[in-house]
Amino acid sequence: MDPVTVSLKINNPEDFSATILIEGLPGVGHVGKLVADHIVDERKGTLLAEITSHHFPPQIFIDREGIAHLPENQLYHVATDPPILLLTGDCQSTSPEGHYILTGHYLDLAARFGVQRIYTLGGYGVGRLVEIPRVLCAADRSALIVEATEAGAVFSPDEPPGGIIGAAGLLIGLGSKRGMEGIALLGETSGYLVDPISSRAVLEVLCRMIGIEIDPTRLDQTAEELEGVLDKLKESEQHREHEELSYIG
Amino acid sequence: MDPVTVSLKINNPEDFSATILIEGLPGVGHVGKLVADHIVDERKGTLLAEITSHHFPPQIFIDREGIAHLPENQLYHVATDPPILLLTGDCQSTSPEGHYILTGHYLDLAARFGVQRIYTLGGYGVGRLVEIPRVLCAADRSALIVEATEAGAVFSPDEPPGGIIGAAGLLIGLGSKRGMEGIALLGETSGYLVDPISSRAVLEVLCRMIGIEIDPTRLDQTAEELEGVLDKLKESEQHREHEELSYIG
Amino acid sequence: MDPVTVSLKINNPEDFSATILIEGLPGVGHVGKLVADHIVDERKGTLLAEITSHHFPPQIFIDREGIAHLPENQLYHVATDPPILLLTGDCQSTSPEGHYILTGHYLDLAARFGVQRIYTLGGYGVGRLVEIPRVLCAADRSALIVEATEAGAVFSPDEPPGGIIGAAGLLIGLGSKRGMEGIALLGETSGYLVDPISSRAVLEVLCRMIGIEIDPTRLDQTAEELEGVLDKLKESEQHREHEELSYIG
Amino acid sequence: MDPVTVSLKINNPEDFSATILIEGLPGVGHVGKLVADHIVDERKGTLLAEITSHHFPPQIFIDREGIAHLPENQLYHVATDPPILLLTGDCQSTSPEGHYILTGHYLDLAARFGVQRIYTLGGYGVGRLVEIPRVLCAADRSALIVEATEAGAVFSPDEPPGGIIGAAGLLIGLGSKRGMEGIALLGETSGYLVDPISSRAVLEVLCRMIGIEIDPTRLDQTAEELEGVLDKLKESEQHREHEELSYIG
Repeated sequence: MDPVTVSLKINNPEDFSATILIEGLPGVGHVGKLVADHIVDERKGTLLAEITSHHFPPQIFIDREGIAHLPENQLYHVATDPPILLLTGDCQSTSPEGHYILTGHYLDLAARFGVQRIYTLGGYGVGRLVEIPRVLCAADRSALIVEATEAGAVFSPDEPPGGIIGAAGLLIGLGSKRGMEGIALLGETSGYLVDPISSRAVLEVLCRMIGIEIDPTRLDQTAEELEGVLDKLKESEQHREHEELSYIG
Repeated sequence: MDPVTVSLKINNPEDFSATILIEGLPGVGHVGKLVADHIVDERKGTLLAEITSHHFPPQIFIDREGIAHLPENQLYHVATDPPILLLTGDCQSTSPEGHYILTGHYLDLAARFGVQRIYTLGGYGVGRLVEIPRVLCAADRSALIVEATEAGAVFSPDEPPGGIIGAAGLLIGLGSKRGMEGIALLGETSGYLVDPISSRAVLEVLCRMIGIEIDPTRLDQTAEELEGVLDKLKESEQHREHEELSYIG
Repeated sequence: MDPVTVSLKINNPEDFSATILIEGLPGVGHVGKLVADHIVDERKGTLLAEITSHHFPPQIFIDREGIAHLPENQLYHVATDPPILLLTGDCQSTSPEGHYILTGHYLDLAARFGVQRIYTLGGYGVGRLVEIPRVLCAADRSALIVEATEAGAVFSPDEPPGGIIGAAGLLIGLGSKRGMEGIALLGETSGYLVDPISSRAVLEVLCRMIGIEIDPTRLDQTAEELEGVLDKLKESEQHREHEELSYIG
Repeated sequence: MDPVTVSLKINNPEDFSATILIEGLPGVGHVGKLVADHIVDERKGTLLAEITSHHFPPQIFIDREGIAHLPENQLYHVATDPPILLLTGDCQSTSPEGHYILTGHYLDLAARFGVQRIYTLGGYGVGRLVEIPRVLCAADRSALIVEATEAGAVFSPDEPPGGIIGAAGLLIGLGSKRGMEGIALLGETSGYLVDPISSRAVLEVLCRMIGIEIDPTRLDQTAEELEGVLDKLKESEQHREHEELSYIG
């Protein structure tokens, strides 16, 4: 078994090319994941590929029907105009090296389907409740920042401070090295809660930049479902810490 | 030396085929390990293979006679009807990646002996003493959950919350990818103590599902022996932490 | 993608040979980085190579214009007499093994350009404010310690106590194995602040040892700029810790 | 550069064969290291090989003359009757996997020089001052425990509790798999101090078992020197922790 396994789920990859990739993996406030899952649900995305990895948490997830599945990320195709790819799923790497290795595989997939621009979505935790969240941005080139601010994002020289961690950061940094342009859109959020309001703000900027329309109505509903899953995961995490302490007694 | 070493201990593997694998490695309350060790003892299992690995703790264990041995897991064959394989032993991986890698090797062994269904056994720590432990279940397909509840297990949509960590989880998740069906049976337990009562409840459901009979009488005795070993391991763990702090002074 | 990527930025490496390498990567008080960056700025160094790696932090950095870049170290050539190479950049390894692996690549580069002597620069944190910082030294051979003390460094048998961690240490230890002589110059510093005063003391000893002159006037200015970047990084680090805690909720 | 580098320091390995290996790497109270270093000093051992590794701490050590060297372990030959090999040095692995990998290399060396029996030496920290330290033992076979108790060691069924961590444990566990017999001799010690009294007790049992005589007089002196080095290392460790916290600020 390889450290990273990418399983194609379609026979005709040439029918699913797209120049745009949107990343929404788990992160602060699950702002990015909410947006990506919402677009896939709303527009009935086609599953292109599943990614499993040694670098993911060593566990299974269990859904409300008691059915177990491995930690897994997915690449979807949505037939908007222009068509888009979405990277979403359960998890990020458990190690620093794993973040680099997994991002390399995500970019291999992106290249295969013709991606030229990457949007990474996330939350920017500010430690307090935010009523009207701004959408901050950072990119690998200034033209994209201009585009983003025209679409409603805010450019603020000291925010987000310093850097963006994980796939949302590395897809831009490593993608740029491979000739893909990239921009991160980060919705302000408390950092303590799953935040559909922040996601809605990010979705709005994103849709304007791409030139598509996605109905945001059911985003709150997605958020509620995710909240349920996350409660369980949080308990599981505590359970895991407990279990690790208990390995030898 | 390879990161994982699997040593076959028999010359005629074709005589030991079985369609069922039961996993009982160390975990919460040692509920799973107690059950697996008990079946091997009770039915005089044949040792098929030993597994050692770089991913196991970097130490030796010492028994009451002062004899040292490497951390090691074992695969046993028990000639019940139907025959079964049991995976038990000393330890789990020390790293996230190691859990994936080791589980891959366990599944290679399972495939080699013809396994089609995997039962993983464990404890579900609830943080309080449990008088009459329920046996919870999760599986890679719903038919198995039906079977388990008919055999006395309980299906509860929010328990165990979120996931199952380590070999007990990954054997189901990765096994399913390789075409083996899998179910986890988790006995409620405080999480603080070795718990033969929980193990007895798990054993009962397990035997009903497989259609075999195993006398549970001596399970308490196995638990007592294990308790002694675990006390020593706990001291050893404290000793180790101390030792690590002392490496340079 | 390899664990370490070294990208040459010039077509004529033979025109940039030098027998001296100066290392100034991030460390205590950023004493070494301040000196190396100052020399590159002051003498308009030529970028020879960029190094990125799986062993660097899994993130992007964002500058005040919102432009993202991968964590990256650089090798510069400065046409002083004698000419010198400077290794500076964003970061060190996130793992113990990574320090060894990266240092091996730095030494491959050094060997390629003809390096025979390595100066590593750093701070020696003493936990209190230092008005007139001494410059301590350690080397792979005693002749270099004599040279350094003649140039104003101080040799003190119990300082720095025990060892030098990271690239500043391993470049000397591994370089010596490959036939390059090496000396570490460590400026006393509180350890709590970016410290241009300590850097100035190190620069002075360094220039005297090499026999070059570098105007130190703008060092304070470089320090101010770095302080701004570091504030942002510190916030980012806190942000990251927060984010990691938030991965599953 | 390989993860582990073994450099032979002699041209005629066939002249240095020995059936006995004694391990005394750093550990609790440095009991084992004191004994091994003392024998090498007392009997003017010949350096056979040096081992450096990615799995060692990523730093250089600095001696009182300011001379830096890489973390390194050494294999010595001492021409006692019977002749013996000694493994001593600066450090153990920084990771669990590294312990297994390094021990594999130590055993390759042992096999090359003809080793058939391994003695590993260490301290057994009891958390209180010990006036007359006992020497506990554990082995891969019971005949060795009989030999050790005849030579003055104590066999106590619950001590050391559970296990022996690091090279002192794995050399016995992995050595046994490769056909070498092995015994650990552990001197009682507080665990807080370098303990030449415990080392003296271990040396006595060891010499009786092998049938050699080593004058223990200068052991206290070796201990004093080591104490000095260790004080510096402890400071360095604190320094390192401090430095790591300071990487980005």
